[in-house]
Amino acid sequence: MKAPRIGVTLGDPGGIGPEVVVKALSNPTLLPEAKYLIFGSAAVLDWEEHALGVRLDRESIPIEETAESPRLAAKGAPEAGNGRASFRFFETAVEAARAGAIQAVVTAPISKSSWDLAGIRWRGQTEYLEHLYPGAIMTFWSERMTVALFSHHVPLREAVGRVTKENLARFFRTVGEAMERTRRGKGEFLVAGLNPHAGEGGLLGGEEKDEIIPAIEEARAAGMRIDGPYPPDIVFRAAAGHPEKIVVALYHDQGLIAFKLQAFESGVNVTLGLPFVRTSPDHGTAFDIVGEKRADPRSMIEAIRLAYELIPEKPSPGGRV
Amino acid sequence: MKAPRIGVTLGDPGGIGPEVVVKALSNPTLLPEAKYLIFGSAAVLDWEEHALGVRLDRESIPIEETAESPRLAAKGAPEAGNGRASFRFFETAVEAARAGAIQAVVTAPISKSSWDLAGIRWRGQTEYLEHLYPGAIMTFWSERMTVALFSHHVPLREAVGRVTKENLARFFRTVGEAMERTRRGKGEFLVAGLNPHAGEGGLLGGEEKDEIIPAIEEARAAGMRIDGPYPPDIVFRAAAGHPEKIVVALYHDQGLIAFKLQAFESGVNVTLGLPFVRTSPDHGTAFDIVGEKRADPRSMIEAIRLAYELIPEKPSPGGRV
Repeated sequence: MKAPRIGVTLGDPGGIGPEVVVKALSNPTLLPEAKYLIFGSAAVLDWEEHALGVRLDRESIPIEETAESPRLAAKGAPEAGNGRASFRFFETAVEAARAGAIQAVVTAPISKSSWDLAGIRWRGQTEYLEHLYPGAIMTFWSERMTVALFSHHVPLREAVGRVTKENLARFFRTVGEAMERTRRGKGEFLVAGLNPHAGEGGLLGGEEKDEIIPAIEEARAAGMRIDGPYPPDIVFRAAAGHPEKIVVALYHDQGLIAFKLQAFESGVNVTLGLPFVRTSPDHGTAFDIVGEKRADPRSMIEAIRLAYELIPEKPSPGGRV
Repeated sequence: MKAPRIGVTLGDPGGIGPEVVVKALSNPTLLPEAKYLIFGSAAVLDWEEHALGVRLDRESIPIEETAESPRLAAKGAPEAGNGRASFRFFETAVEAARAGAIQAVVTAPISKSSWDLAGIRWRGQTEYLEHLYPGAIMTFWSERMTVALFSHHVPLREAVGRVTKENLARFFRTVGEAMERTRRGKGEFLVAGLNPHAGEGGLLGGEEKDEIIPAIEEARAAGMRIDGPYPPDIVFRAAAGHPEKIVVALYHDQGLIAFKLQAFESGVNVTLGLPFVRTSPDHGTAFDIVGEKRADPRSMIEAIRLAYELIPEKPSPGGRV
């Protein structure tokens, strides 16, 4: 197989996205061997390179220029022009991935406020992807812990209602197949319970017996390495330090309370269930430190490394990652 | 005020309770100045002292012998006799506290299986206290984080339903008054939201706007130092390292996922809302290491220290801690 092609977006031109992209890509020894393409604006990239005193080789790392050309003056605050530009950078990268021109999209942070000022209706990059691919799965990866969210941006009451055997079985299938196609191969999954003590044999809730256990058994019968349901206050502690195991959290905060206490600055956000790989650093635009040259590129470097790892060994046109 | 009187139970005679009690009480320099009483069996205590090669001074630390006298042979496994005995140690200490003979009860771990074998109908010591005092509040204290649980051993679906303005206002009042009577004085409370992103202005759930915020405002108007609701995946990270702030978790796993990832071996369980202080180390009977003399008494020492801190400056007969 040829070297995989990885697209990297610049994110909001007013945030630290361009800085961490230039810092990451100017350190090729830290990166896997791949063909990198930048989705953004040459003017933004030139400005950032000048500020940092480095120059990426346009021959080896070409820039995919988009139609929108943001005002360079707006730094460190949300701005409509930057909102339009960062949406176009992202959209263009996604189109390239859908067309098979790249195998992975690594997205620098956008500003939801900039998008809002620009009239972009999506609340974020993941929400846009979920619109295109309703089976998309939000996952979080760090050196301490890996978490997949069964549900995320829904009220807790509704999240509880979604815990049915059918929904869970579909989710397990999707996430299992997505992992199996990566370079990491078949994942090992630990499923958290919904109720305290994972229901304690039905005393503290029936979903474990009635919905979760049957769905796990079905997935196991289909060949998945999957266990549970585990008491939620035990499973994350047990999985801490085992990033090779993927904890399935049944609702947003179950997974993210644990992840955010463990991951600090090195977390990577991964959208699974797409026909291409998408990763993103776990930080935002950090408007408060823009222009100070002290943005830490580690999370971006981790996002690029992980994108490489998750690209299937053989391209599978139409298949989902 | 005279030195406060603190009762310490031996816990299950087959577990590490007697060992950590003897180790803790034989290190008076690590303990606050108080009058200590042991609730247990002299035979169990003698055996343990002999095994450890120390002898507590019965004059300064008397033992309150209970009627049940457990079989000394049963070590390292659940056993009916030990279940009956440990229940009596605990019940006798609670009776002494209710009668005002002691101001605090520090409970060594019991075995739920031993209680079950003995036909004790309570699932644990906290459950027994909740039966006596339905307003009892389960809290967890460590050097990293303090958490109070609004609800605990109920199915998640039911925990969501309990989040009403009236229930929350009553809870805030109880926990606020309990803290105010301790030597620590008035607490500062951070309330977690129920929904992802604390509801995000109603987009992700209405409980924050309709129930939680009005209850917080009412408590604040009554003079409490209380803020929120905070996004659940942010508040525990923000509160980590600030044990002087008390995070109010709205359901069992919200609080305990965070606490157990932070506290490891030094956590202390505190029941608030009783007319006396009750603390307990965060570990169990550890049947697997019984008799090896390597049980770590730190959590027991912390439980004793914290009990002392939580005893009101002035005894308040009939008042609730």
